[in-house]
Amino acid sequence: MADPRSGAVDPVPTPRTNLLGVDLYLEVRGRGLRAGLIDALREAVRTGRLAPGVRLPPSRSFAADLGIARSTVSAAYTELVAEGWLTARQGSGTRVAKRVEARRTALAPQQAAPTVHRPAYSLLTGMPNLAEFPRGQWLACARRALGAAPHEAFALGDALGRVELRTALAEYLARARGVYADPGRIVICSGFHHGLKLIAQALHARGVRSVAVESYGLDLYRRQLTSAGLRTPLLDVDEHGARVADLEGLEGVGAVLLTPAHQFPTGVALHHDRRAAAVDWARAGDWLVLEDDYDGEFRYDRQPVGALQGLDPERVVYFGTVSKSLAPGLRLAWMVLPEALVAEVVAAKGGLDWVSSALDQLTLAEFIASGAYDRQVRLMRQHYRRRRDQLVSALARRAPGVRVSGIAAGLQAVLELPPGSERSVIEAAGREDLAVSGLAEFRHEAPPGQSAGPGRDALVVNFAAPLESAWAGALEALCRAMPTGGQVARGVLPGR
Amino acid sequence: MADPRSGAVDPVPTPRTNLLGVDLYLEVRGRGLRAGLIDALREAVRTGRLAPGVRLPPSRSFAADLGIARSTVSAAYTELVAEGWLTARQGSGTRVAKRVEARRTALAPQQAAPTVHRPAYSLLTGMPNLAEFPRGQWLACARRALGAAPHEAFALGDALGRVELRTALAEYLARARGVYADPGRIVICSGFHHGLKLIAQALHARGVRSVAVESYGLDLYRRQLTSAGLRTPLLDVDEHGARVADLEGLEGVGAVLLTPAHQFPTGVALHHDRRAAAVDWARAGDWLVLEDDYDGEFRYDRQPVGALQGLDPERVVYFGTVSKSLAPGLRLAWMVLPEALVAEVVAAKGGLDWVSSALDQLTLAEFIASGAYDRQVRLMRQHYRRRRDQLVSALARRAPGVRVSGIAAGLQAVLELPPGSERSVIEAAGREDLAVSGLAEFRHEAPPGQSAGPGRDALVVNFAAPLESAWAGALEALCRAMPTGGQVARGVLPGR
Repeated sequence: MADPRSGAVDPVPTPRTNLLGVDLYLEVRGRGLRAGLIDALREAVRTGRLAPGVRLPPSRSFAADLGIARSTVSAAYTELVAEGWLTARQGSGTRVAKRVEARRTALAPQQAAPTVHRPAYSLLTGMPNLAEFPRGQWLACARRALGAAPHEAFALGDALGRVELRTALAEYLARARGVYADPGRIVICSGFHHGLKLIAQALHARGVRSVAVESYGLDLYRRQLTSAGLRTPLLDVDEHGARVADLEGLEGVGAVLLTPAHQFPTGVALHHDRRAAAVDWARAGDWLVLEDDYDGEFRYDRQPVGALQGLDPERVVYFGTVSKSLAPGLRLAWMVLPEALVAEVVAAKGGLDWVSSALDQLTLAEFIASGAYDRQVRLMRQHYRRRRDQLVSALARRAPGVRVSGIAAGLQAVLELPPGSERSVIEAAGREDLAVSGLAEFRHEAPPGQSAGPGRDALVVNFAAPLESAWAGALEALCRAMPTGGQVARGVLPGR
Repeated sequence: MADPRSGAVDPVPTPRTNLLGVDLYLEVRGRGLRAGLIDALREAVRTGRLAPGVRLPPSRSFAADLGIARSTVSAAYTELVAEGWLTARQGSGTRVAKRVEARRTALAPQQAAPTVHRPAYSLLTGMPNLAEFPRGQWLACARRALGAAPHEAFALGDALGRVELRTALAEYLARARGVYADPGRIVICSGFHHGLKLIAQALHARGVRSVAVESYGLDLYRRQLTSAGLRTPLLDVDEHGARVADLEGLEGVGAVLLTPAHQFPTGVALHHDRRAAAVDWARAGDWLVLEDDYDGEFRYDRQPVGALQGLDPERVVYFGTVSKSLAPGLRLAWMVLPEALVAEVVAAKGGLDWVSSALDQLTLAEFIASGAYDRQVRLMRQHYRRRRDQLVSALARRAPGVRVSGIAAGLQAVLELPPGSERSVIEAAGREDLAVSGLAEFRHEAPPGQSAGPGRDALVVNFAAPLESAWAGALEALCRAMPTGGQVARGVLPGR
């Protein structure tokens, strides 16, 4: 991205000298000879070309040697003495300081890391289609937002986040997700990862020691809770979502983390009786429901079901993010908090916004308020629906034995496999140069005292992320890897 | 910033009905009658206009009442039952769910907070001149960066941060600050606040239990260390900076946090013998120096002294940020780490970049690589030097008794006051409607077993932050508040 030519001013022809048998190149980086000389000497010492203890030539002769003013050399020596590179002692002249160590050539970790084979195709979960990020519209909103921003917007901000964004979100969330949100109870964070961490800290500070999680999910988020000192008993997940009724049986649970609109990753929606039961449970013990609404906007068979939070804003913490609707790289998400929790979360956040870019917050506020966000979500909804339909029909043709379970929503689908076949199918996919996840990967380990429910064999397929150019190939590879699809494929298509 | 008119599609004339004596306004928010009806019913239930248990009219009559299709009403009822707002029982019709609570009108904390008087003038520390943020150039760089970014740039990034930014920083820091930096040992963070926290975690994980800090500084940062379980003994600061030699006397210290280029807030530079001693100390015990180079680019009387880090990149952690050079609201900063510490910091960061916006990182990379950063720093250097000169000459005229101490650098100056007068001068400033900090505010409390050195009376004056329009007034107020300046001022100016 960076234009190498634009790095600095054009270098002038490089003066060169042979200093104590060391070739010393002086690149004048558009900052004058003095600075150039200082840089060159530093570099020569660093690289060991000038060893500790070595005596430098007197400034006069060195200057003559270089064909520059003596004062320039003396100034450079003085500077490097001040910085500790050189030492100047009466009588013994100017020497390279003893303490300066020659640098060992350091390798960047990623360079050092062994290069792993990157599969040609990937249907791994978690990523939206990055090619669809609305770069032009985002920039247009950034221009308007930056143009309109008050000076104070560039200061360290309010711990809640920019009021412009919270105001735009309050309107959007009420309209699009049925969330009861006023700007005063919205807190901006850098992702669900960050928000959950803040809530975990606040809950722990309240004395909560146990938060129930669904038996399937991302271990990464569960660890956010455990690393805050919370136990995380499991709630089994069935075709109606998490078994909320089992909360009664769990000892000392102060909150439950749910994905009501679209359980991740099994893809089912929480049954309305269970939605009600979750709120009733929270109300009965004055406990909290943590609602992770990571992809609630993406429902393909009907209007999205509104958020649970609206039912009791004082007992449900609502989490939303742009990571699925726009891009994870933006690092922008939000929480809608019970009023009583706001001060505690602000405290956990450190009293000010140490994390989120004010400019991105203002840009997203403009993006939402201008209607661009609604348009983008609508666009992606159509796009992803098409992708899902293509997946389903391809499987129906090529792997009729495989059932797609879960609701028509979100960015991934679950493919039910014959018992015991999950691992072998993933391996078969690997042979087709396709990376795909099995459901087992998302199955939480049961904590001591709890027995995990029976496991299922299935794939979790992200149909959203593949670039248009890779989608057909990924689909083909997937079908080839399927238990029945394999034979069929080899029947109808030329084998490789 | 958000254009109210651009929020949603123009509303169509609002159908209105009287439902059970409740006026029900149906605003069609450009999403069709059905969605409008659902929103209106949700709102009516939320606000308590429709109380729990209340029976709703049969869909047929309600539809007739509204003059819309019955199917629309039934669909809305079904939706709201699914969401848990309504219950539908055979025989008893559709009712408002018992569990739904009318919302208490919640006040945003900031609204609830008592409004405090904001002084007309402020010389409080920590902020650069926000009016000088180069909005246009930043946008231009954002456009170029976004245009050139690969799709993967929008994904969750490498824990080190975007390689484009680390590459641009490596070149800049070597050139401008004499830092030995290769991209593989640079870690992007959201501020010194974040970076110090990561280092504190990594050090604690290594078994370090004590990190020495300068006796003057921001308590906020010291707390970052203590909250990571580290003890923080103090190093006295004198006219040559921190008394590095005292490190020998401190028990079990594994690292020291220094501001070598410009001690904050006393404003002195670390003497070159002490720079050397700090590195020697770290090398002797294989300990670490944490170098906070928060404003190293801003030196007005000479070329900036290069960073300490260059002397021993394996034993100095270098911290830099755009919070002073551009704006704190960007939340972008960097660390240059000893090679051995990289993996530990990456682990502390959570293995991926959960924090920093990829777009801002790419924009800053372009901003630096294109030379815009150098130009901005040069511009602000001139601007701030002028401000400092104006401050010094105003004081010389108006408060000759007050000495400005510290080097000509950075964003703040220290004004030495007669012993015992600090508090009264700050109060006098308050009467002039000026907010200014005393040195005492930044004096760390000595931990048990350590005795704090003698305190000094002084003001820490941020001459950089005031807007052009407020600068003269702030200066005038400051002079009026000065012990001698006071009388003089009342002599030469009409008293208020």
